[in-house]
Amino acid sequence: MASLSQLMENEVFMAFASYTTIVLSKMMFMSTATAFYRLTRKVFANPEDCVGFGKGENAKKYLRTDDRVERVRRAHLNDLENIVPFLGIGLLYSLSGPDLSTAILHFRLFVGARIYHTIAYLTPLPQPNRALAFFIGYGVTLSMAYRLLKSKLY
Amino acid sequence: MASLSQLMENEVFMAFASYTTIVLSKMMFMSTATAFYRLTRKVFANPEDCVGFGKGENAKKYLRTDDRVERVRRAHLNDLENIVPFLGIGLLYSLSGPDLSTAILHFRLFVGARIYHTIAYLTPLPQPNRALAFFIGYGVTLSMAYRLLKSKLY
Amino acid sequence: MASLSQLMENEVFMAFASYTTIVLSKMMFMSTATAFYRLTRKVFANPEDCVGFGKGENAKKYLRTDDRVERVRRAHLNDLENIVPFLGIGLLYSLSGPDLSTAILHFRLFVGARIYHTIAYLTPLPQPNRALAFFIGYGVTLSMAYRLLKSKLY
Repeated sequence: MASLSQLMENEVFMAFASYTTIVLSKMMFMSTATAFYRLTRKVFANPEDCVGFGKGENAKKYLRTDDRVERVRRAHLNDLENIVPFLGIGLLYSLSGPDLSTAILHFRLFVGARIYHTIAYLTPLPQPNRALAFFIGYGVTLSMAYRLLKSKLY
Repeated sequence: MASLSQLMENEVFMAFASYTTIVLSKMMFMSTATAFYRLTRKVFANPEDCVGFGKGENAKKYLRTDDRVERVRRAHLNDLENIVPFLGIGLLYSLSGPDLSTAILHFRLFVGARIYHTIAYLTPLPQPNRALAFFIGYGVTLSMAYRLLKSKLY
Repeated sequence: MASLSQLMENEVFMAFASYTTIVLSKMMFMSTATAFYRLTRKVFANPEDCVGFGKGENAKKYLRTDDRVERVRRAHLNDLENIVPFLGIGLLYSLSGPDLSTAILHFRLFVGARIYHTIAYLTPLPQPNRALAFFIGYGVTLSMAYRLLKSKLY
């Protein structure tokens, strides 16, 4: 267990663990938001989901798409597309021994940008709010990838 | 190599490695299922995929959507949305030194719930089979996130 | 910090870190490609994105789908579906102490196959170019999963 306790005593890795858990929990919230809009607006993708709302042809009318639901789904997919690279690159970056304050700046910017992206997408706020939030998160991940490849390329 | 062999001798981490490999292999199976339905039902998304099935206008009729294919794709996307948080949070949770039996309970519940979710989605079983499977997996990930943030918040 | 420097001195892990960073950066490029096509072709998914291109009803005509944009989005989703299992299984495989040359062969084949998959999808090249690239990446991940489960099943 020696190596594990050493890993969890490493401050950069601890910070990465905390911020990753926060940003992944935020992403999981999107599933709940989709379910909430599907149920309150009665918009479903599967016939078996509508059964409780009517019978036969009456239930089929709930098999439709809705602007609000599609918006949440796009925000969720954008989260996936951006959090997966952060997860992989961030983990390797944390293990490459970066400066603690630099690392925390990266993690905080990313988590803040993704939370702001969700708010800007779901409200919706006028552009360029969402685009800005997207590019900050994107830039943070690229900056970590650059440092990783520069110092540690095999 | 000392730290690596210690990592792989850690029982919680070994259990995480095994269950993660199983659930990711299950997710990869969804790609094969999509390909299977696309080929047997001749439903394609790209013009270049239809070339073997006819020429010119005749091939274009296979550029369509199909309930069965869309169902597999939704199940696959739901897998992605739920397995990515499990991957990130589960890895950090495994490294945070949890009780072995508690950890294994979490991993088994998650893998079981996701396999049942796929069966419920593809059969399809009547609700609330799928919803239940989804919420068990969701709850397991949230429980790991809660324990991680409680004990290790930076 | 002892265990961390040992981890980063491990050649297999270093190789995994480098190739993962490359393949994730490639995946992030897909976001830029989507944005590029959306802006040059004026094809948007959200009303707030069109505001700069016209007012009222005039702007709404840009809320449409486009073959080119949908193609990039499908390529991006396929990347996600295949790189997530590689990320999880590859990380655990790297830590399980495989032969260095075997591991590097796996990583190089995967990264090469995914880059070729993107080229084949976006050009588009006739089939079976894309299918072949897909199955090479898929096979590499399955091969790592098999070795992991064979040697390390809990």
